[in-house]
Amino acid sequence: MAREVGIVGVGITKFGEVWDRSLRDLGLEAGVKAINDANIASEDIDALYVGIMSPGMFLNQEHVAPLIADWVGVAGTHIPATRVEAADASGGLAIREAWMAIKAGLYDIVVVGGAEKMTDVGDEEALETLSATVDQEWEAFFGATLPSLYAMIARRHMYQYGTTREQLAAVAVKNHKHGSMNPDAQFQSVVDLKTVLSAGPVAEPLGVFDCAPFSDGAAALVLCEWEKAKRISQQPIKITGSGQAGSSLSLSARRDITTFASTSTAAQAALKMAGRTLSDVQVAEVHDSYSIAEILAVEDLGFCKKGEGGAFVESGATALGGRIPINTSGGLKARGHPLGATGIAQAVEIVYQLRGKAGARQVKDAKVGLTHNVGGTGGTCLVHVLEGGA
Amino acid sequence: MAREVGIVGVGITKFGEVWDRSLRDLGLEAGVKAINDANIASEDIDALYVGIMSPGMFLNQEHVAPLIADWVGVAGTHIPATRVEAADASGGLAIREAWMAIKAGLYDIVVVGGAEKMTDVGDEEALETLSATVDQEWEAFFGATLPSLYAMIARRHMYQYGTTREQLAAVAVKNHKHGSMNPDAQFQSVVDLKTVLSAGPVAEPLGVFDCAPFSDGAAALVLCEWEKAKRISQQPIKITGSGQAGSSLSLSARRDITTFASTSTAAQAALKMAGRTLSDVQVAEVHDSYSIAEILAVEDLGFCKKGEGGAFVESGATALGGRIPINTSGGLKARGHPLGATGIAQAVEIVYQLRGKAGARQVKDAKVGLTHNVGGTGGTCLVHVLEGGA
Repeated sequence: MAREVGIVGVGITKFGEVWDRSLRDLGLEAGVKAINDANIASEDIDALYVGIMSPGMFLNQEHVAPLIADWVGVAGTHIPATRVEAADASGGLAIREAWMAIKAGLYDIVVVGGAEKMTDVGDEEALETLSATVDQEWEAFFGATLPSLYAMIARRHMYQYGTTREQLAAVAVKNHKHGSMNPDAQFQSVVDLKTVLSAGPVAEPLGVFDCAPFSDGAAALVLCEWEKAKRISQQPIKITGSGQAGSSLSLSARRDITTFASTSTAAQAALKMAGRTLSDVQVAEVHDSYSIAEILAVEDLGFCKKGEGGAFVESGATALGGRIPINTSGGLKARGHPLGATGIAQAVEIVYQLRGKAGARQVKDAKVGLTHNVGGTGGTCLVHVLEGGA
Repeated sequence: MAREVGIVGVGITKFGEVWDRSLRDLGLEAGVKAINDANIASEDIDALYVGIMSPGMFLNQEHVAPLIADWVGVAGTHIPATRVEAADASGGLAIREAWMAIKAGLYDIVVVGGAEKMTDVGDEEALETLSATVDQEWEAFFGATLPSLYAMIARRHMYQYGTTREQLAAVAVKNHKHGSMNPDAQFQSVVDLKTVLSAGPVAEPLGVFDCAPFSDGAAALVLCEWEKAKRISQQPIKITGSGQAGSSLSLSARRDITTFASTSTAAQAALKMAGRTLSDVQVAEVHDSYSIAEILAVEDLGFCKKGEGGAFVESGATALGGRIPINTSGGLKARGHPLGATGIAQAVEIVYQLRGKAGARQVKDAKVGLTHNVGGTGGTCLVHVLEGGA
């Protein structure tokens, strides 16, 4: 019988501008929290996977997987420590690679960590690094930054589907409200529509509140072969579906920039593997690096029809208490977006929800959750389906 | 029955200082060569894995897997494209992750590429990037570069085991001789002992000829599930063993710097999986980023006793025609060392050998080969056992 995989431990740091702590400190905190949550010893760990986007450009440090292994205290056993990178989908990718390794029968227990330390450099340099996620020769070299490309997507979506500036802003208002209930979020203050609309522009039509912040942070999971997971955990969460898909890096190579084919392809693969349809999903964390990105996500995942994402969000359907609560953690917008950590942080939130431990932001009786993690402007997408109560 | 994996196609570019071509051009050439060698169509490809060390620091470009997928012409099918990184062991790591994904049953045919473009920046900047493979906070920040750390290892090996300067140089002489028979090698000229010994110092005792060069290049493999591999290929090469191990990133955290525990751990795992002992191995590509590194490798892999690596190389045992020919390609020293490409290039050479197509440098009747790929100063090691004639 094919081996299956569960999550038996989660850990996360408070996201924010954490100037007094280094990448390794953050990685250590998240890792140890996850190991403690799983109630395992470090000797039980068979391998480590790390998702991180650009420690090279941010910190002059590549080869971080053995660094984190050392800092978490598992280097002495010489276990494999692997870094994967797919821009800000690095965390989701790390989950998939670790899941795959357990499925392949190589390991039973794997720690998966994601982290980024973005604020040790100035904002200009951070923006340049962010823009390394898009095509250097065809986009960034000519001055296109990541936010400006998303602004182009937003403009086109507005033109093509009548999406309004207010609908974009509604994403930020909702996610800040959710973030206000998350003690680990970078921003825990609510904002109103007027504040979002009157904020300074980043790349029009996107303003400051339409963009996820620069963040430092780390998150970690302990994955475990399912039969073992049931023995060692009171409340294991099963990874029932995993989907990964790619797309051209450059927007210019795509027929339609208002849709990410990588999202729909990855979602269909993950749901099919889980034997689920989207209507089974009760809570989702989606990649709202920009407000327009969440609108694309709800459309491309299939929560609403193409072009109706703006109205869907505006209707309250994706707020807590709505039909399908999305980004209960506050999302990338309010929880924060330390690039490599984000995909893992999404899974941490869904685990909280499926365990029934999400506090004020709990979705009642949530049994099936979904994570959606995008790299850059959709060159990579990872979707996972998680299920509790098994 | 557990799924097994074979190599059905290989491709490599000529390594060197390739100022007139970009990373994507090199990736394209290697990828297309491998696809053509495998005689498959691009629609047959289920996924892509890319091993690359630091496109961020070298080229301001992260998220390269979808970029390469696009350039090779497979982005339109939205297949998963994954980048992995483990310093200069990134190529070997990409092989392992792709092998694992096929074993897990997710894909049947996977293209694995490795590449690096190092010479678009100046030598100072390239050296700084190389040194991002070691511990930034505990080593590089204080001025320790990658060559200076290997020089410390060499000094200690000389002190502890009586290894001589001439024995270090013998590695370079042998590998240049091998490289002179490899039309894809960066350096195809033989050098004598006197030349190596009188070359300018890089970090004493290591001179220019003791260090692998800065290189541009790419290499690719087509991996395929074994039953299918036997159907589509006349001469599939089976990956019978894969081993990965880690170690602390910083040398200061190790008890003994004259041995890489990651090498011995990975080798034992790979050989055990293959059901082989080291005496079965007839040809090997090992990680000679520095001459001392090859001496460590032959010792830690177990080709000779600890401390006897210098004499072993000097005896001619590892030269073509010797007991166990090592680095018939010219190794990192003479074939060149485009960091992410190296682990793949090693596998390409072993495939040539096992197919009996290695030309002047053919090891007679080679049936079992081994690749050994190290990241930085041993924080990561990948070992693979490849077998032909199945």
